[in-house]
Amino acid sequence: MNRVALVAGGLARFGKREASWRDLAAEGGKATLEDLPELSPEKIDGVIVATADEEPYLAAVASEILGIKPKIATRVENLCSSGGTAITVAYSLISSGLINKVLVLGVEKMCHRQTVPLLEWDFTRGGVLMPAAWGAVYAQKHMEKFGTTEEQLALISVKNHRLSSMNPFAHFQKPITLNEVMSSRHVVTPLKLYDCCSKSDGAAGVILAGEDEARSLTDTPVWIKGLGESSQGATFGNVNPEYVTWPCVKIAAKEAYQTARVEANKIDLAMLHDAFTINEIIEYEDLGFARKGEGGRFIEQGQSEIGGKVAVNTHGGLIGVGPPIGATGVAQAVEILAQFRGTAGKRQVGRVENGLTLNLSASVSTGNVIIYGRNSH
Amino acid sequence: MNRVALVAGGLARFGKREASWRDLAAEGGKATLEDLPELSPEKIDGVIVATADEEPYLAAVASEILGIKPKIATRVENLCSSGGTAITVAYSLISSGLINKVLVLGVEKMCHRQTVPLLEWDFTRGGVLMPAAWGAVYAQKHMEKFGTTEEQLALISVKNHRLSSMNPFAHFQKPITLNEVMSSRHVVTPLKLYDCCSKSDGAAGVILAGEDEARSLTDTPVWIKGLGESSQGATFGNVNPEYVTWPCVKIAAKEAYQTARVEANKIDLAMLHDAFTINEIIEYEDLGFARKGEGGRFIEQGQSEIGGKVAVNTHGGLIGVGPPIGATGVAQAVEILAQFRGTAGKRQVGRVENGLTLNLSASVSTGNVIIYGRNSH
Repeated sequence: MNRVALVAGGLARFGKREASWRDLAAEGGKATLEDLPELSPEKIDGVIVATADEEPYLAAVASEILGIKPKIATRVENLCSSGGTAITVAYSLISSGLINKVLVLGVEKMCHRQTVPLLEWDFTRGGVLMPAAWGAVYAQKHMEKFGTTEEQLALISVKNHRLSSMNPFAHFQKPITLNEVMSSRHVVTPLKLYDCCSKSDGAAGVILAGEDEARSLTDTPVWIKGLGESSQGATFGNVNPEYVTWPCVKIAAKEAYQTARVEANKIDLAMLHDAFTINEIIEYEDLGFARKGEGGRFIEQGQSEIGGKVAVNTHGGLIGVGPPIGATGVAQAVEILAQFRGTAGKRQVGRVENGLTLNLSASVSTGNVIIYGRNSH
Repeated sequence: MNRVALVAGGLARFGKREASWRDLAAEGGKATLEDLPELSPEKIDGVIVATADEEPYLAAVASEILGIKPKIATRVENLCSSGGTAITVAYSLISSGLINKVLVLGVEKMCHRQTVPLLEWDFTRGGVLMPAAWGAVYAQKHMEKFGTTEEQLALISVKNHRLSSMNPFAHFQKPITLNEVMSSRHVVTPLKLYDCCSKSDGAAGVILAGEDEARSLTDTPVWIKGLGESSQGATFGNVNPEYVTWPCVKIAAKEAYQTARVEANKIDLAMLHDAFTINEIIEYEDLGFARKGEGGRFIEQGQSEIGGKVAVNTHGGLIGVGPPIGATGVAQAVEILAQFRGTAGKRQVGRVENGLTLNLSASVSTGNVIIYGRNSH
């Protein structure tokens, strides 16, 4: 089986952008290609575009814009976890030997939409279709059961805004205080404005390559060591009956840890899916960084801060960097690559051995976990 | 490398349907699952949905409808070649060892749309965005250069309507005469109404499995022997400078033949992408069934009829069965499976050894070729 590594990464700034989808694809794609000048575009044999945009055929469109005539160009769409799934598909296309050098490009225009994507047929949400409604249910239940506090939730937002303020590609460039989070307007109790990610436009790209190509193209390949994914359904009412623990995350993480032969306590860098502050807390637990119910204390004790046991969302997370749908999971991989390379600037943590990404969709119904490492095995 | 086979197939009738996207997904998905009762839905670990529908997250939606909680559920979208690309992605996910039993489900609601999908940014088409415009250019050039006649084009339509009249799942259930084709109204000269495929709703599903599972689940697995795909761009003006020969088809076919170790003259069954009659004629040539320029004579001499050297579009092709975007390439595989099994009823050809599918997108800018055989190597 051909091993697979990240060999390049690039971003188009996240935020409210005047640029079109095509502009963002060009900007993010070119940034990615320029990160690896040794590889000319015509040698790329796969282009996977992750986007929830309504227009069809955007992988061929992006390829044409970037001057690539790949063997395989296709869109992979899985709502907010499109990026993680696209990297997984790219991995398998390389690993199976069909192609060898794949650009995965996540692109989204989101700010012009009235709403974030809603699953309007999801009657299990009642009349309350906005994502914060499910976030609030999970938060309420976690607070009830484990005594998690609104202040603990707020600490996630403070941390992720502080980190995004050091990331020039992030939507939110200013740190915020605990008081600012606590006094922001309620969206759905107990979630307040700064407990929620916003809407952002943006693009993120990575190039993946098979073992021989990766070694010849770069001195700092970052290897995919394990992958796990689980889809539990599409409707809020069907997927997380216990609310405070998420089967798709646990199943995906178990598979990723097993295939990587890495345990949770060996992960020193993690990009998590903090659509809401409560997410990051529950994810600490379901990924095995903290015991169930102790996610609130975990953030309070600073263990997930830079320099702690596991550095979480060093790019700023969805709350700080922004959540452009298809770009979210790809941007996680871009940060993993930067941190392994030691090029993350002010956000740089110490030497990283094992990195993890968690990318989710639609009220935590799909989870994708990828584990990265310095060595190919 | 894990070998991969088709082990089941099913259809929801193509045509103008009152059913919703979800209804069609349920109908096509259930027909596919019922084709292999030995495999219970909960054992399926991948669901790839091929569709150009505007709504996101439809692979998770389809999985939930069908009672499947797969590891990997994702949409693969590549406009009219979504189905072929989805089978290619499913192949790689199995071949790489990530998952083992994958439902590929192509579903499309198309008739309610005012137009077929247009690439509105494609200025290279001038003001004429309807697909028949590019079909007509290719036809005009082929007639000019090789003396291909309107009657030869019409013979493709007569053949494919005759075949679809024997396919209970086809949109068009009646044979038509050469005179009816020739006297149908002009769409874009020289293409007339019956030279063009229509719009259709519909769904098609196949299940693919790794070698061990395939052998244990069925006595009649149909193996994927070779795959090839090529994306040359997204705009008409960029992709086929010589008009009468199509690089994406030639490149994809060459790769598929090489990986399958099969030559064109060993293909005895082929499902081609006859969006227009001229397509099938050029495809005879670019796939190596006929010499360049002789596609018109090839259909005239009846060599592509049932019982001929290579039986083409035995299900009726896009012209007879209908072209529901994401379902098109999957329906090709369903017919391959039926013909290998000998269950194609009135359409059944003799014993098939090597089958081929060709699935195209957007003015023949992307081509996907898959070669199937009785033996896994």
